[in-house]
Amino acid sequence: MAPRGLPEPVLIRGTGLLGTSIGLGLRAAGADVYLADPSPSAQAVAEDIGAGLAYPGDLSGAPTATGSSGDTGTTPDGTGALPGTVVVASPPDVTGQVVIDSLLRFPGAVVLDIASVKGQIQRQVRAGVVDGVLTEAQAARYVGTHPMAGRERSGPVAARGQLFTAAPWVVCADQDTAPQAVAAAEEIAQILGATVHRMSAEDHDASVALISHLPQIAASLVSSRLQETPAASLALSGNGLRDTTRIAASDPQLWVQILAGNAPDILRILYGVREDLDRLITTMEDPTAPGARLDIAQLIAEGNAGHARIPGKHGAPPQAFAVVTVIVDDTPGQISAVLQDVGQAGVNVEDLRMDHSAGHEVGMLEISVLPGRKQELMDALGAQGWKVV
Amino acid sequence: MAPRGLPEPVLIRGTGLLGTSIGLGLRAAGADVYLADPSPSAQAVAEDIGAGLAYPGDLSGAPTATGSSGDTGTTPDGTGALPGTVVVASPPDVTGQVVIDSLLRFPGAVVLDIASVKGQIQRQVRAGVVDGVLTEAQAARYVGTHPMAGRERSGPVAARGQLFTAAPWVVCADQDTAPQAVAAAEEIAQILGATVHRMSAEDHDASVALISHLPQIAASLVSSRLQETPAASLALSGNGLRDTTRIAASDPQLWVQILAGNAPDILRILYGVREDLDRLITTMEDPTAPGARLDIAQLIAEGNAGHARIPGKHGAPPQAFAVVTVIVDDTPGQISAVLQDVGQAGVNVEDLRMDHSAGHEVGMLEISVLPGRKQELMDALGAQGWKVV
Repeated sequence: MAPRGLPEPVLIRGTGLLGTSIGLGLRAAGADVYLADPSPSAQAVAEDIGAGLAYPGDLSGAPTATGSSGDTGTTPDGTGALPGTVVVASPPDVTGQVVIDSLLRFPGAVVLDIASVKGQIQRQVRAGVVDGVLTEAQAARYVGTHPMAGRERSGPVAARGQLFTAAPWVVCADQDTAPQAVAAAEEIAQILGATVHRMSAEDHDASVALISHLPQIAASLVSSRLQETPAASLALSGNGLRDTTRIAASDPQLWVQILAGNAPDILRILYGVREDLDRLITTMEDPTAPGARLDIAQLIAEGNAGHARIPGKHGAPPQAFAVVTVIVDDTPGQISAVLQDVGQAGVNVEDLRMDHSAGHEVGMLEISVLPGRKQELMDALGAQGWKVV
Repeated sequence: MAPRGLPEPVLIRGTGLLGTSIGLGLRAAGADVYLADPSPSAQAVAEDIGAGLAYPGDLSGAPTATGSSGDTGTTPDGTGALPGTVVVASPPDVTGQVVIDSLLRFPGAVVLDIASVKGQIQRQVRAGVVDGVLTEAQAARYVGTHPMAGRERSGPVAARGQLFTAAPWVVCADQDTAPQAVAAAEEIAQILGATVHRMSAEDHDASVALISHLPQIAASLVSSRLQETPAASLALSGNGLRDTTRIAASDPQLWVQILAGNAPDILRILYGVREDLDRLITTMEDPTAPGARLDIAQLIAEGNAGHARIPGKHGAPPQAFAVVTVIVDDTPGQISAVLQDVGQAGVNVEDLRMDHSAGHEVGMLEISVLPGRKQELMDALGAQGWKVV
């Protein structure tokens, strides 16, 4: 029943959305899980929904090694086994400190964290070695990871064991990392249904600066401009604005920690954005000047080129699917009825979106299919009486 | 059969995606439609798919008035009636010129255009009056409109009569516009299933600069940064990046015309964006300085505030729906089966998204429902054996 390769019990430090979700997923796979959170109420919720048991030891005060040979020890009060694996799921700001605390406190345990910026934590651990706080052997038991999953809500109540299904889970080992630390991290990712991506902390941080932090900043910058907009203007909003700003509803406190923690990588990208923006502004200040139109077209074309590199579903190229749009009434069962007919036509739905606009009681269901199946699907749906656009 | 309030026949000048779609929709409603496009092949496609008949008159050369009392005249060759309404669906760059040509050529006709920037065309028509090219009475027969619909593809082959269903259609009349011009424009919008929004050309252009042109620029700026990104970084891409950049695949030639045509309104917004970006860059250059973190949090919080103002479906507030996520296999019929169970539970689907990531054969179906129905739906789907996240 218990997962192989994962030293147990697993102690999860931090029972927010991610920590609690990891606990739920590991428990579902039969692992022994302890939970600890500085907030007793957050911890109680996580326990109540079955993410693990309260850690019976005391994690307050300066760390003292409480076991010397890993999973054979017990907690000081004798009621529980010492953790074989510690998952640090604290807020990004304090993650490095909790990692070091865990390495000192549990000399036999593998320690991994799940914060979304990796370089700064790795540097904190290395600095611990330089400063003599940690031995090299202690530091080697640490491995940084980043499960790239989230929800629109936070906190343990929103936690789900399936949160990581099909999500990328980055594991940032270096030449000093102990093999059993990497093995434990990858085992957790696999148990939770995620895909392991191995890369250096430097490559990870440069990647997320571009694919996660830049989109967040762009969405916030665009949304910020909407603060004073008349309602009549916003009533014209379409999916272009909605898509571009969807992630702008993010938590400021979390994002301060992420952006400040990855400042150098993000800055490198923002300098490039500012250069492009300055060029566009200069061009648009005199749009009839020679070359001005070419410059504007160039910006859009460069966006085309970059956009075309984003991989699609299952790694397919982004434009690989054809879209069939069906007009549906806004009543229960309509969408299901369309998709039932799609299924009966034997055509697989590669992607799906509802497109609607304010003030209408109909919606457009956009069904992405393989291009070779498009006409067949349109014919089949048309024959069933659907309005296919 | 023929629509009331719409002077017929309708001549559509320009048979691209929008012109052809308008033709299809008007024909479906029983209106007489003529088509004319400088490209014989584009026009032939539009005719073939039933968007209207070839205009029998000659539109080349300098305009000469070919009718003096509206829809009672016939074309010079005597084979067709003179248009009662002219819809100018030319590329934005030449729209003003084709509008003036149409006002001169058809003294009895209402003339409307559908270009996505309105001020510059209105100014061209007014300049025509000042320069003595047009009389005030001729200019009064013009009304600018903007149907806010589009597809990922262009050209007449992609045209659909239902393209405008539930879309906003802005009508920009001023105090000089003839009532029958406004009536004809609004009749067309209604026939095609769109919602009429009346506003001045100035308000329209300021609105679209914010809700359409700024998102396009932001998506292009973000996507442009992806041009040199290693594939291993892009493999981590999630819906945040995909959503933020979805519209970056737009046509550079079309967008040059749109952005150059609305430069002053867009510039006003871009100055604000540059100010925010400069502030963010300065802050991130020294993220440990006093107040730096507050500054970053402020940017995200301002994005929250702006984002919260975007109206949702049917004008509802954006965060009004709760999301139930169901894990589905990537096989035909799975999504339909889920939604059938949703329908049987009597819960209406307010919005729908597929969420998937590269390399996985499962997907997450995100179903938005009214918050009061969420638990009930989760229970119902769980009872049917679905993995509800």
